[in-house]
Amino acid sequence: MELKENERIDDLQYKGLQLIQDKSGFCFGVDSVLLADFAKEIKSHSTVVDIGTGTGIVGLLLCKKTKLAKIYGVEIQKEVAEMARRSAQLNGLENQFEILNCDINQIFDFLPKNSIDAIVTNPPYKKVDTGVKNRDEKQMISRHEVKCTLEDVIEKSSQLLNDRGEFYMVHRAERLVDIMCLLRKYRLEPKKIRFVHPKPTEKPNLILVKAIKYAHPFLKIQEPLVIQDENGEYTKEINEIYGR
Amino acid sequence: MELKENERIDDLQYKGLQLIQDKSGFCFGVDSVLLADFAKEIKSHSTVVDIGTGTGIVGLLLCKKTKLAKIYGVEIQKEVAEMARRSAQLNGLENQFEILNCDINQIFDFLPKNSIDAIVTNPPYKKVDTGVKNRDEKQMISRHEVKCTLEDVIEKSSQLLNDRGEFYMVHRAERLVDIMCLLRKYRLEPKKIRFVHPKPTEKPNLILVKAIKYAHPFLKIQEPLVIQDENGEYTKEINEIYGR
Repeated sequence: MELKENERIDDLQYKGLQLIQDKSGFCFGVDSVLLADFAKEIKSHSTVVDIGTGTGIVGLLLCKKTKLAKIYGVEIQKEVAEMARRSAQLNGLENQFEILNCDINQIFDFLPKNSIDAIVTNPPYKKVDTGVKNRDEKQMISRHEVKCTLEDVIEKSSQLLNDRGEFYMVHRAERLVDIMCLLRKYRLEPKKIRFVHPKPTEKPNLILVKAIKYAHPFLKIQEPLVIQDENGEYTKEINEIYGR
Repeated sequence: MELKENERIDDLQYKGLQLIQDKSGFCFGVDSVLLADFAKEIKSHSTVVDIGTGTGIVGLLLCKKTKLAKIYGVEIQKEVAEMARRSAQLNGLENQFEILNCDINQIFDFLPKNSIDAIVTNPPYKKVDTGVKNRDEKQMISRHEVKCTLEDVIEKSSQLLNDRGEFYMVHRAERLVDIMCLLRKYRLEPKKIRFVHPKPTEKPNLILVKAIKYAHPFLKIQEPLVIQDENGEYTKEINEIYGR
């Protein structure tokens, strides 16, 4: 596998997976790893879409954590999409994990409505016009709602999913209200939520949410997912998620 | 103070407060105490309404925890309202804490719209037709949405509050989605949420939420509020809230 000058290969330390990343670009974080673990209950033989796949970290992990039939990674940035495609090849997963280099708002040129069993997404977190913008445009698109808003992601997800299709997302905890209201607006009923806390006594910074299309309202809030204990050591659960 | 045969006086162990309760009826729980503490930031000289005041526990505590000017306790059940009225007298708070024995849907016969600085409410938790109904009708009205739904409470609160008026509620954590969506529907923007966990590693069972009328969206999720530590001892924070 040939790398570009700005790229490196990272060992994901999980079932032999490797990932190509841009040395100076947007590298995957704990949020992607937690999302892939949260979504590992995706049923066997599912057809899945990863919206905003980036370098492909979530898709690669899901190929190993589930028995999904096919996962499409939607990525708007050409260079990033191409990097994810090579990572899929590098792991011999190019038939299972297909990258679609397109805008989510053009997704129906590639995939039919009501055809997908599960969506996973780690979308850009920041509202446009809030927070410090990244100087580098590529990073900005990955982090900010420049090319797609949270509402775009949720609306398109609902249209892609079949009846009872499952939606898994990681996002900033502070966007809780927007997430709940938009999911319900587009008939994706929140069924399971897990808050992620940096330490046991700290406020949550991330939220993991599972919603089901057309489901009846009944929400389960799970136990807190804690990253580090009081002494700054990774918790047992985090070590298990990372396969350590 | 004369008591009825079925009544007893409980010492709240907080600044000398006493409360009349029905021995066989619905007695206050930790949720009311947590709500009063969560709402203690209510500004001095505020006019406040406690919706579904019950025996008056939240109103009494707020008279001692804040410098509010006046609090109206709205209680639909005649006997319960009358008991709360006597508890206010028992504590010499009858001028500050006035009980209105009415249906929340008739509240505008008593109080004008857009006139209230803050609302506190510990409404019935259970949706009608879910869970086991209490055999006793009085308890059923306190616990189930028989006489008023969550939407009634939020709609009337929004109408009562003035611009930037504050809304404080305790509810079941599992109703999170309904709470978020209804608050936003009635222009009460959720600003602060705190989840209450029985133990540090357990899922939250209660949610405390503060919303502000017409505010811009920006939510703060606070640190978990934990009732008991791993050994079953009350946490330092709970002991402080109870004034121990």
